[in-house]
Formats: sequence, C-alpha cells, structure tokens
Amino acid sequence: MSSMSTPLKMGVIGLGRMGQLYARLLATQITGVVLYAVAEVDTSARQKIADELVIPNTYREPEELLENPEVDAVIIATPTSTHAELVMAAAQAKKAIFCEKPLALTIEETRIVLDAVSRAQVALQVGFMRRFDAAYQEARALIVDGRIGQPVTFKALSRDPFCPRREFSDPAKSGGLIMDMGIHDFDLARWLMGSEVERVSAEGSLLVCKDLAEVGDIDNAVVNLRFLNGALGNVEVSRNAFYGYDIRTEILGSEGALQIGRHQHTPLLILTREGAQYNVTPYLMERFGDAYRAQLQHFAQCLREERTPDVGGEDALAACTIAVAATTAYRTGQPVRLSDL
Amino acid sequence: MSSMSTPLKMGVIGLGRMGQLYARLLATQITGVVLYAVAEVDTSARQKIADELVIPNTYREPEELLENPEVDAVIIATPTSTHAELVMAAAQAKKAIFCEKPLALTIEETRIVLDAVSRAQVALQVGFMRRFDAAYQEARALIVDGRIGQPVTFKALSRDPFCPRREFSDPAKSGGLIMDMGIHDFDLARWLMGSEVERVSAEGSLLVCKDLAEVGDIDNAVVNLRFLNGALGNVEVSRNAFYGYDIRTEILGSEGALQIGRHQHTPLLILTREGAQYNVTPYLMERFGDAYRAQLQHFAQCLREERTPDVGGEDALAACTIAVAATTAYRTGQPVRLSDL
Amino acid sequence: MSSMSTPLKMGVIGLGRMGQLYARLLATQITGVVLYAVAEVDTSARQKIADELVIPNTYREPEELLENPEVDAVIIATPTSTHAELVMAAAQAKKAIFCEKPLALTIEETRIVLDAVSRAQVALQVGFMRRFDAAYQEARALIVDGRIGQPVTFKALSRDPFCPRREFSDPAKSGGLIMDMGIHDFDLARWLMGSEVERVSAEGSLLVCKDLAEVGDIDNAVVNLRFLNGALGNVEVSRNAFYGYDIRTEILGSEGALQIGRHQHTPLLILTREGAQYNVTPYLMERFGDAYRAQLQHFAQCLREERTPDVGGEDALAACTIAVAATTAYRTGQPVRLSDL
Amino acid sequence: MSSMSTPLKMGVIGLGRMGQLYARLLATQITGVVLYAVAEVDTSARQKIADELVIPNTYREPEELLENPEVDAVIIATPTSTHAELVMAAAQAKKAIFCEKPLALTIEETRIVLDAVSRAQVALQVGFMRRFDAAYQEARALIVDGRIGQPVTFKALSRDPFCPRREFSDPAKSGGLIMDMGIHDFDLARWLMGSEVERVSAEGSLLVCKDLAEVGDIDNAVVNLRFLNGALGNVEVSRNAFYGYDIRTEILGSEGALQIGRHQHTPLLILTREGAQYNVTPYLMERFGDAYRAQLQHFAQCLREERTPDVGGEDALAACTIAVAATTAYRTGQPVRLSDL
Repeated sequence: MSSMSTPLKMGVIGLGRMGQLYARLLATQITGVVLYAVAEVDTSARQKIADELVIPNTYREPEELLENPEVDAVIIATPTSTHAELVMAAAQAKKAIFCEKPLALTIEETRIVLDAVSRAQVALQVGFMRRFDAAYQEARALIVDGRIGQPVTFKALSRDPFCPRREFSDPAKSGGLIMDMGIHDFDLARWLMGSEVERVSAEGSLLVCKDLAEVGDIDNAVVNLRFLNGALGNVEVSRNAFYGYDIRTEILGSEGALQIGRHQHTPLLILTREGAQYNVTPYLMERFGDAYRAQLQHFAQCLREERTPDVGGEDALAACTIAVAATTAYRTGQPVRLSDL
Repeated sequence: MSSMSTPLKMGVIGLGRMGQLYARLLATQITGVVLYAVAEVDTSARQKIADELVIPNTYREPEELLENPEVDAVIIATPTSTHAELVMAAAQAKKAIFCEKPLALTIEETRIVLDAVSRAQVALQVGFMRRFDAAYQEARALIVDGRIGQPVTFKALSRDPFCPRREFSDPAKSGGLIMDMGIHDFDLARWLMGSEVERVSAEGSLLVCKDLAEVGDIDNAVVNLRFLNGALGNVEVSRNAFYGYDIRTEILGSEGALQIGRHQHTPLLILTREGAQYNVTPYLMERFGDAYRAQLQHFAQCLREERTPDVGGEDALAACTIAVAATTAYRTGQPVRLSDL
Repeated sequence: MSSMSTPLKMGVIGLGRMGQLYARLLATQITGVVLYAVAEVDTSARQKIADELVIPNTYREPEELLENPEVDAVIIATPTSTHAELVMAAAQAKKAIFCEKPLALTIEETRIVLDAVSRAQVALQVGFMRRFDAAYQEARALIVDGRIGQPVTFKALSRDPFCPRREFSDPAKSGGLIMDMGIHDFDLARWLMGSEVERVSAEGSLLVCKDLAEVGDIDNAVVNLRFLNGALGNVEVSRNAFYGYDIRTEILGSEGALQIGRHQHTPLLILTREGAQYNVTPYLMERFGDAYRAQLQHFAQCLREERTPDVGGEDALAACTIAVAATTAYRTGQPVRLSDL
Repeated sequence: MSSMSTPLKMGVIGLGRMGQLYARLLATQITGVVLYAVAEVDTSARQKIADELVIPNTYREPEELLENPEVDAVIIATPTSTHAELVMAAAQAKKAIFCEKPLALTIEETRIVLDAVSRAQVALQVGFMRRFDAAYQEARALIVDGRIGQPVTFKALSRDPFCPRREFSDPAKSGGLIMDMGIHDFDLARWLMGSEVERVSAEGSLLVCKDLAEVGDIDNAVVNLRFLNGALGNVEVSRNAFYGYDIRTEILGSEGALQIGRHQHTPLLILTREGAQYNVTPYLMERFGDAYRAQLQHFAQCLREERTPDVGGEDALAACTIAVAATTAYRTGQPVRLSDL
C-alpha cells in the first residue's frame, strides 16, 4: 500500500456510464490518488477517456490491468454479471477493490467472492453511495443520537424516470427489478434501522415497460419487511416515474420521524394561471453526484490510512440476501424468511 | 321524504366526540336540515348539547328516537360495535341513514346489514369523509381525466399521534388497528385506482403502545395490495406519529403522479439557529374538518334530491373486506386472496 | 347591552360581497348572536339574503336600521367612502360598531370619526381580520415570547389576482392602491414589530391594469418603512398576481425569523414530465375565511363580556396614517415623516 | 492567447478565502487551464496552497506575477479596495482578467478602470457568480421566453448569517453594507428585469452588529428601485440572519411569477413533538459552490474561444452605480436619480 507521501495508483475497469464517472472523479476531484490505468474493450471509448484525462496506462482486458504491479487499487464498473469474477481476479492480484453494487446476483456467488477477498486480505468497498449522501449521513447520526427514539417503521421509494434500455434489461444480468433498484433501499434499511431483516413479502407487476415481458422482468414492486426487532418496513421500486428521478426514505420512530429526499431540483418556482410549478430531479447524478465523489474519497482515504472501508462485503451480502428473498417472495406469492435461504 | 320547501329533520344517535361534531355541524353549517332529535345514554352530555344547540327532542335510547315519525334521517355515531344493529333498526324504522365507518367489523355482518337496508329501501351513506376532502376530490378528477395516465401504484400512510385510550382499544370493538385506521385508505385505494383489490399481504407489530398487549392489538402495520388490473399498492398504519396527525396518499401513474397531504398545519415557519421549523397538523379535525362538513351536506342534498349518496353500502363492504383480509394476512403471515373470504 | 342569556341582535349594513359574508357568518357560525336586521338599497339582493337566512327585519336605508332600538350592534360593510358617515350615525344611535377597513380615507376624517365614537362611548372594532388568522396569531405570540429576539426587518407582500372592477376602481372611493391593499400590511407592521412607523418612502407604477389610468390609480407599489426604534420594513402591493392570491409576511429578528403565508391551496401535488405542480390559493376567502369568522366571534364575545375589542379606532388611525404617508410619498417622490402629517 | 491544444496558464492574485477557492477550482475542476502561478504576501498561506495544489510559480507581490510573460490570465481575489489598481496593472500587462466583485467602490474609479481595460484590449469578467447558478439561469431563460409576460416587480433579499469580522468591516474598504451585499442583487435586477434602474430610495439602520458603529456602517437596509420602463423593485440586505445564509429573489410578471432560492440545505426533515424541522443553508459555498465553478469555466472557455465574457465591465459599472445611489439615498434620506450621479 502507498505511503502518505505518494499518491495511490488507481485503475478503473470498465468505461461505461459509471466507469467514466469514476474515472473523471479520480482524475479531478479525489485527493491523494492518480488515475493510473483503465481497461475497456471498446477501443474508441477507451482512447477518448484516456486522452481527455491523460491516463498513462490503457488496456483492453481487465486481466492486463490487474497484471500491472504498480496499480494499488481498482474500481470495478463493468456490467453487474461480471462483478463476481473480476473481484475475485482483483483479490488474487492483491489489489484493493472498489466494486459497484451489487457484488453478485446470488447469495452463493456473493459468499464465494467474499471468501476469496477474505483469503487475499485485500480491502473491499461496495458502491452503496447513498450512505455517503449528506442527508442520509445526518439522518443516521440523528437516529444513533436517539433523536427519534426507537425506529419503528422504514419506508423507501425508489423510482426511475424511464424503462431500462434493452441492453440492460435482462434480469439474468441485472438481477431483475428488485435486485437492481431495491438493493440500495435494503442496504439503507439495515443501516438506518439498526436491525437485520427477518422476513419479506412482495408483490410485483409489469404495467408499463411492456418490452420487459420478453426478458421476464417487471417494472413495479412493493416489498414488506419485518425486522428481527419487530420493526416493520416497506419498499417500493418502480421504473415508471416519468416525471423524474424520485428517491425518498422515511423512518418513523417512537419519538419522532425523519424524511430524506425531495423531488425539487433547482430552487426555482414558476407561478402562472395553471398554478405553481417546479422542476424535478432528472436523474441519478443530479441527486447523488456529491455522494459518488464522497464514497470514492472515503475509499482512497481508508486505503491511505490502512482502515477498513465502511461499506464492505458483509453489507453487500446482507443487502443481496434481502433482494433475493424479496424477488422469491414476489415470484412465489409467499413470504420468505431470510434464515431459510 | 321532505320536499324542498321544508327542512329535513335529522336525528343524531350517540353524542361522543364524533356525534357532537355531527350535531354541531347539523345545527350550524348544513343547509336544508334541522337538528330535530338526539339520543344519548349519558344524561349530562345529552342535556349539555341539547341546550347549547337548542334541540327540540332528546332521548336516552336510540329506539325512542327511531320511533319518532317526524325524524327523516339519522346519523349513527355510536361505538363501532353497535353500528350494525342500529343501522338495521333505523332501516326497519324507514329512516335515511348516515353511519360512521365502519358499518360492521366482519364481512358477514356487513352483508346482513346491507340486506336489511336494501329490503327497507332506505338511503345509506357511510362516513368515508376523505372522499369529500377538496384535495382528494381534485386528485380523483385528475385521474379520471387521464392526467397521470394509467394508475400503477397506490401508497398510503395513516399515522395517529397517540396510542388509543383504553376504552377504545379493544379490537373486538374497534376491529383492531388495520380495520380501525386502514379502512379509509382501503376505500381510497379502490376509489382512486379504479380497480378492486385481489390479494393482500401484511406485517404487523406492537412496538410502542405496550398497553395494547393486554387486548391483543398492534400499533403498526404495513400492507401490500395487488389490484385485479395488476396495479400494486402499499398501506402503512401507525399509532406512533407523536409529532402529529399525518395522512398522505400517493398515486403513481404511467404518465405522472399525485401526492395528497402535507403535515404543515398553519402557514407559519420559524427560522432560528436550530434550523427552520413549522407546526404539524395536530389531529383529525384540523385536517378533515371541512370534509366532515361536506359529507353531511352531500347526505342532506342527496336526500332532498332523492339521489343515492355517493358512498354507500357496497363501498363499506368492499373496504371492510380488504381490512379483514389484511388483518388475517398479518395474523397468519400468509397472503390472502379476497375471493377466498 | 344584552346579558349572557339572550343573544345579541346584530344588524348588517350593506349586502355586497363582504356584507353577505358577514351576514352568513352571523346566521350560521357565530355563537351568542342573532342576525336581526339588514339594510341594503338593492331590493333583490336584500330579499334574497333575507329569505335564505330568515332575517326578521329588512331595510332599504341604513338610517332605518339604526332607528330600530332592538338592534344591539351593527356590521358596516358598505363601500369604503361611506364608512365614516355610517360609523358616526351608528355611534349617535348608540350601537356597538364593527366596521370593515378602512374607517375613513383621510387622517382628518378618521379623527372626526374617532371623536364621535369616543363621545358616544360605544364599542368599535375595525376589520383587520388578518390579526385573527391562526398563523399571524402564533407569529405574534412567538415574537412577544422573544423567540426571534428583537424584530429587525418587516417584509410584506400583498398580491391580488386581478385588476379591480370598474365600480371599485375609483381612488376617491377606495383610497387608491396603497390605502386599499396596503392597510392590512401597515396594521400588521405595527402589531408584529411592536413599534410605530416614523418615515416612509415609496414608488408606484401603473403597468398592467391599464384601465386604471382613467381614474388615476396604479397597480403596483413598493414602500420602505422606518420604525421609531430603528427597525426597517418593506411592503409590496400589486394587482398583478394573476396566478392567485398571494399574501406573505416575514419578520427578521436578532435571533431568528418568521415567515407567514404560502401560496399552495389544497395539499395536492401533481408530477408530470413538465415538473411538479400545485394549485395556488384563488382568493381572499380561501386564505382568510376562518379569520373572518374569528374576528366576528371576537366582536360578539367582547360585547357580551363588555370588553373593548382588540382592534379598535386607534389602530385604524395608525394604519390609515401610514397609508396616507405612503401614498403621498409615491406621488411626490419624496420620503414622508408621519409626524409631519 | 493560447490555442485549443495547450491549456491556459492562470495566475491567482490573493489567497484569502475567495482566492483559495478559485485556486482549488482551477487546480481540480476547470478544464483547459493550469494553475500556473499565485501571488500572496502571507508566506505561510502561499506555501501551503502551492504545495497542496502543486503550483509551479509562487510570488509575494502581484507585480511579480504580472511580469511573468507565460501567465495568460489572472484571477484577482484580493481585498475590494485593491481591485481597481490591480485590474489596471493586469490590463497594462496584457493579461486577461477575472476580478471578484466589485471592480471598484466608486463610479469614477470604475470608469477609470474600464478605460484602462478598454485601451489594453484585454478580456474582463467580473465575479457576479449568481448569473451562473442553474436556478437563476433557468429563471432568465423563462423570462426571455415570455413565460411570465412583462416583468412588473423585482424583489430580492440577501441575508448573511453573521456580522462581518472586524478586518472586513471598514466601509472604506468594503464599500459598506449596500455595496458589499447588495451589488449581486442590483446586477440580478438589471439582468432579470431587462431594464435599467432610474431611481432609488433607501433606509438603513444599525440594529444588531453594534461593533459597526465604530466604522460607521449599518447592518440592515431596504432599497426601493424604479426601473426606466416603470417596473418597481425592492432589495433587502441584512447581516442578521443568524439562522443561516438566505438568498431569495422573486420576479412578478404580467402573466406569472418566478421565485428563486430556498433555505433548506440537505433534503432532510425531522418531525418531533416540537414540529417539523429542517436545516438551513449555512453559507455561501453550500448555496453557490457550483456557480463559482461555472463562472470560472465560462471565463476559461471564453478566453479559449476568443469570445467576450458574458459579465463584463459595463455590468460592473451599472451595478456599482445602483449601489452608490442606494448608499447615498439611505445616507441623505432622499431619493437618488441615477442620471444625477
């Protein structure tokens, strides 16, 4: 691991939308690091980013990047279905690992990955970026501080503003709606409620994004949660919020409640004969851009200070387990106890 | 039935909190009616209201009031467990009937009541006052008008600011948390989504109002709904919103979404070093006072115009069925299809 | 004056929009009173209201009503330019008086009226209904309680949603824009800031309601206030808020700030591809209906308890003086010290 | 001027709070530039920033930096009273210039500076960063698009959360309250209303920051504006918003209105028995951080494309003139016509 005086050499694997974001953040906004290498099969995308960000080492294959002994840490931002294999390869190459969520699509595969990481004794952080959002962090601090008493119910709503593009819509690759969209909410549920989920029930439906019928996925789901301590929860995920990106979370406690999220984007209101109108957050980056930056900075800082990152493999396993349980519950129409998985 | 020129003679049965409200509304704010009679076993309460509102006929027993042939219509505002019997007696006495929700606590009893009302050919309105709230009415009009496309998900949250008083906490009399609090949401679900509920699953828990353990009730529940047309829903009911009375409803549609409800009470904001602060709606009347007035006016107007009131026995049966299904679902931990009840 | 056991007999003079409102409130929502008489020159309007509200005595001329010795108190709701004369006549007839704002259009005339009222020793309340709005009352209580420290600046904005109708647009009768609309804000300024106004400067302009050019009035004005204690203020009045009725007030203090008012009407939000949208308060009654009721109840209660009403002639004089000063300031383009008037 | 292929070499003069911000932005977030030089008399501050941001050239005196022929452009972020002299020196050295607002504290000095810049034919941008805020930009676009009709009134409120520190409180150096805080609002007024200011009147007061008495400044002011086209405006500036940083602007038009600004900081709401509470924007950077970045990027891009920056010397002169007029108006208690200055 690098000492304090020399910057960490970071490699980004995959230069899709998320990979480009991470590359840009590393190149311009994260302190104590250099963007040292990228790997991407698409030559033109790779070359464009490498030129723009002046990246000294570019590779077609992830394996080539992992073989570079100068690389201290990697950011894995490839399609979900390749995460598990790449994390294991990176662990074997003794790189510190930041992996976009989810680590894997099944509980079994997640466990295999965690074993590999554990044996390799490398650092692992998983991309639950909402934990690094200022509002969620303040919410968590207020709960820990007892400001709302004992958490009683958890409510979350995650709504995307469009149907998934065909190339991202195969549930075999994305994990399906509940895994793909709900996993952030399931992670927040555990983190904010301070209790593990015991049982879930769910309903799912395909209502608007009719193309998903071909691949066997749905576009809306509601999931009930029962926590081990008796607290309750509900999570809604939807692809049909064509008005904008809408992420809201509420925690009701025995002494008060917290609400995180709003849909207003810029602080501009227009009043006309039709009423008052404001714009809605268009998508992910407008809401969580700062959180993406903060989670990468956290990763870099933990590596430099040789601390374990806050959001690691066990969190990935726990959220994945809830998502698998909820997906099973909606498919079977029966509640699923997590201890039965 | 009275002609347009003479006012309807109304009798109020039960002068608890709701009965007093209805009596006052009839005496001061509803046009085309006179508050002609009341029945209440508590002599002092009866006398106080009769004096204050100058009511010409006062009775101890409901039966006495029903025997008065001058009474055109009755408002039944007694404890829930007596509703069924009184509605049947009023029907037999050929009175038009306004009954506080719910009509009865079981599906079977509700059906028996509806049969009696049907045979007697009297008008019946059930107290789902939220349907008369300006915001819900506008929401319904926007949905019918197609402004949000096809309704996709329904979300409702009903939170009371205190644990029930001991005398109202027996689920044998109240129907229990889900029946008592959720029935308004189940009625709104059918009305706003334009589809019947097919299946429910639920989780319930006793977390804060520990006295409810004695009577076997809970203080929090989350209920998933699947509608016949494939739409989904979720309802949360809680007794633990000690910050205030909080009723919110959202409908996501294929072209837009609606949100009804806010917790701010008066339009006053205070900003100090601790942040910005506003007061929360304390309880029922501050939020739905106008709706209570409007539903009584609707009842009176329907009687005068010999129209069937908008919210009748079939609505009461449908909402009761969902509440029974949800209560069963939380108790058994299994989803319940409404067609199996 | 009536004793507690018999209701006060109230007479309403003038059955325009405001007079009808007061008549209805007295007939249905104010306790301890009967609507005993009305005076209105328009026979058809008089007859319609008298029938609807079952008013026992109807008159064409105010003088006839004032001659009825049974009438305890009168509500003067005629055009502004007749207020002064009618208040003096009512005082001479020894009636308690509630008069719509303003009492008179000039400082001199206001003083003459107050002298007459004082000599007659009758109660007088002036219709500054905002003081009876729950939000303003809470604001005042918070200020008195020291919650925002020493008041530093006062900001008010009063916007009407339409140009005045021709029959109400003559400044000789209305007092002009600043008197007609600003007088509520000037009254609130004194009441909330706890200090008198020392000096004003103002700008006015005719921008949209071009018909006002004929009568020599304006449709927009901004007024700076300097209070005797050094605090500052600003009031905007406008006829051009075609989006709705918009009344907002802010007080900045040395320890915090208060904001009163919002433009959202019903708690309904619609989200579409165009953004989020809500409806705006259409006009006066939707915002201040409850305050109108509360101020009349206050008047009735003060009479019954033989207390002096809270908002009396001195308040009318003080607000009128500010309005006259501000109107002079905008006309001359020079600041006006109130002590010079 | 640099060609597209080589980055612009930027020098920052002054490393106080604003200078450090600009240096950091240039070093990490602005594309097409390198932070090539800094000048700062405080050796330790200079060395710290130079090390952290790896700046190749560091100087004690601005003149030394200006003598470096490699420097293409300078950012002047020294105390206000030195702006004029440094801009002239930079112009003479043929550097492109970005200068923090205001350019100078008097109209005469501003004119002299503009002459010097004009003769030197160098680019000049002035730091009215609010014009680069997303909400203000959208507001301007909506107005230009006619969405609110003809602008009728302009309202602005700028409130700082603390009294100025002693070293920044001398009005001879800051220009005093109205110049220091109001200049942004005066610039927005011209830009958003599309008309020049014709006349101002003002009131000012020292109410809370008592230390300002020594230097002869005030902590609160209200300013009325009359625009050449007859539109009206009002600007409040205050040092006493101890609850947080509060910048709000409204434009009322003949067909609608716009509101820009809100005080909520993170999208987090806490509800307790005391009501609902949210945090307020603490200070400048939390509200306008993105706008500071965007204005620097605009400057760099204009230089590379050899375009004139959008916010130049004439804008600085116009806003300065309004500020001088308003300061004179408050001091003399008389309205001031800008054409008389």
